[in-house]
Amino acid sequence: MRTQMVEYVHKLQDEICSAISQIDNNLYREDEWEREEGGGGRSRVFANGEVFEKAGVNVSVVHGTLSPEAAEKMGGGHQLKGQDLEFFATGISLVLHPKNPMAPTVHANYRYFERGLGEKEGSWWFGGGADLTPSYLFENDAVHFHQVHKDACDRHTVGNYNKFKQWCDDYFFIKHRGERRGVGGIFFDDVRTDDKQECFEFIKDCGDNFLNAYMPILERRMNLQFTEQNKIWQQIRRGRYVEFNLVYDRGTKFGLTTNGRIESILMSLPQTGRWEYCHEAESGSEEEKLLHVLRKPVDWLVS
Amino acid sequence: MRTQMVEYVHKLQDEICSAISQIDNNLYREDEWEREEGGGGRSRVFANGEVFEKAGVNVSVVHGTLSPEAAEKMGGGHQLKGQDLEFFATGISLVLHPKNPMAPTVHANYRYFERGLGEKEGSWWFGGGADLTPSYLFENDAVHFHQVHKDACDRHTVGNYNKFKQWCDDYFFIKHRGERRGVGGIFFDDVRTDDKQECFEFIKDCGDNFLNAYMPILERRMNLQFTEQNKIWQQIRRGRYVEFNLVYDRGTKFGLTTNGRIESILMSLPQTGRWEYCHEAESGSEEEKLLHVLRKPVDWLVS
Repeated sequence: MRTQMVEYVHKLQDEICSAISQIDNNLYREDEWEREEGGGGRSRVFANGEVFEKAGVNVSVVHGTLSPEAAEKMGGGHQLKGQDLEFFATGISLVLHPKNPMAPTVHANYRYFERGLGEKEGSWWFGGGADLTPSYLFENDAVHFHQVHKDACDRHTVGNYNKFKQWCDDYFFIKHRGERRGVGGIFFDDVRTDDKQECFEFIKDCGDNFLNAYMPILERRMNLQFTEQNKIWQQIRRGRYVEFNLVYDRGTKFGLTTNGRIESILMSLPQTGRWEYCHEAESGSEEEKLLHVLRKPVDWLVS
Repeated sequence: MRTQMVEYVHKLQDEICSAISQIDNNLYREDEWEREEGGGGRSRVFANGEVFEKAGVNVSVVHGTLSPEAAEKMGGGHQLKGQDLEFFATGISLVLHPKNPMAPTVHANYRYFERGLGEKEGSWWFGGGADLTPSYLFENDAVHFHQVHKDACDRHTVGNYNKFKQWCDDYFFIKHRGERRGVGGIFFDDVRTDDKQECFEFIKDCGDNFLNAYMPILERRMNLQFTEQNKIWQQIRRGRYVEFNLVYDRGTKFGLTTNGRIESILMSLPQTGRWEYCHEAESGSEEEKLLHVLRKPVDWLVS
């Protein structure tokens, strides 16, 4: 499984970067990096292209030894306790921030984790998901993004769209604002059954459908007209994105406290963000319409 | 002491806001707010004036009951343990972000805390400090800012400039970047002796000298010429300011997790910030000169 997943995330990185390159008329900067404690990664970042302000796609393959405290807190902690502190992890993580405020930011992450040899009950699992963060709400975009992910879930016994959709709404909650980061998608962790291959097929199906979920949305929004006020609102929403990632995101917090490669961890931050004191959306405005669904998540696929 | 300190922070807020108003040719927005659990505050924020992009000066007077866990972690925790969970706190907190990238951001905070009636050993203390965050280093600015604060320390037996300067360098450390937020100043907590009045006089002297420490620096930098590149660098430094405040600052973290007034807590964030992937200062540049002192703090007052 290690080999299969490592090959897969690299292939997916190539595929997604190639699609970005084409639409953005831009090349990425690639950095291969090593982690002192074991393993490394390959980061690719696009900046100042035609379509994206900043877009990063990162893969990593790392291994090492967990502290007993860290081990207890994670998947397998219950069964494995202090055993199998050696770990192996690989995954792909991406965040794309388009320039046009009508085009949403998107994030996806798929990962595989093993403790010890990954053979015992509870010693391996998959995690991941994808979520959409618009500055302006186009309901059909949210519906499309959710539908593609529901379809992927529905093709696999381990895929549970309703559960993963709820998990996503719960995870991307900016508590101090009372808002979600965006209109959600799917989020899951600790995905495992008796059949590792079956779980991998689900992850692959999600990853393979990332471009199907996002590109049609991007294509219909990236050339829409917008005003300076639209751009300012996008910057305010990007400020909230920064707040979520720095204050709540588990991956970011884990990276910052464990001596990860800072530039790859913070690659997820937008190029620019804005904080206006007591900014309020006008009553009845498009900005307020977005806030409404961020404050009270919608079941996009209920007709 | 409660009355004295409450009166003082309000008077200082008036004085500082009046100085900002005059130089910024701008008026502040004032919000008086109440805290559900007891007390409230008065926030004043300037936006888009001639000199400041964003400037906030906040006072608060709050009271309530500490959780036993919170109580143990704070000043007096050792002696008082589970006793005296009622608390009273008042203080002033300000952050000024000028537009011109040659003019530094400044932050100051002075506060008084009491547990119970504030009469027992260890049941009251003062805290605070002031620090300077330039995007471009002018050594004489750093020297002046430190000298004014050293002079204030030297006038009081409780003032220990060397200790408070070191504390400031340690506190405003952005660990994941290996940089301090700025060129420091003073920072202290748990200031108390047998003589409460003596401690208050020290705090007052620091507060009274805030404008002496900052305004001469602002006046000589606020009209300097600058390039678009200088402005981009300022925005990148502001991104680091956001990182410090959201990831490390104790006051911000406390506020976000205790249902504080969000807009007053996040008033400290700059209006705009920027994150460029793998930004590097050119060798020998002014940007690199700043990074050098952020990475290795300087004793500004050693001749």
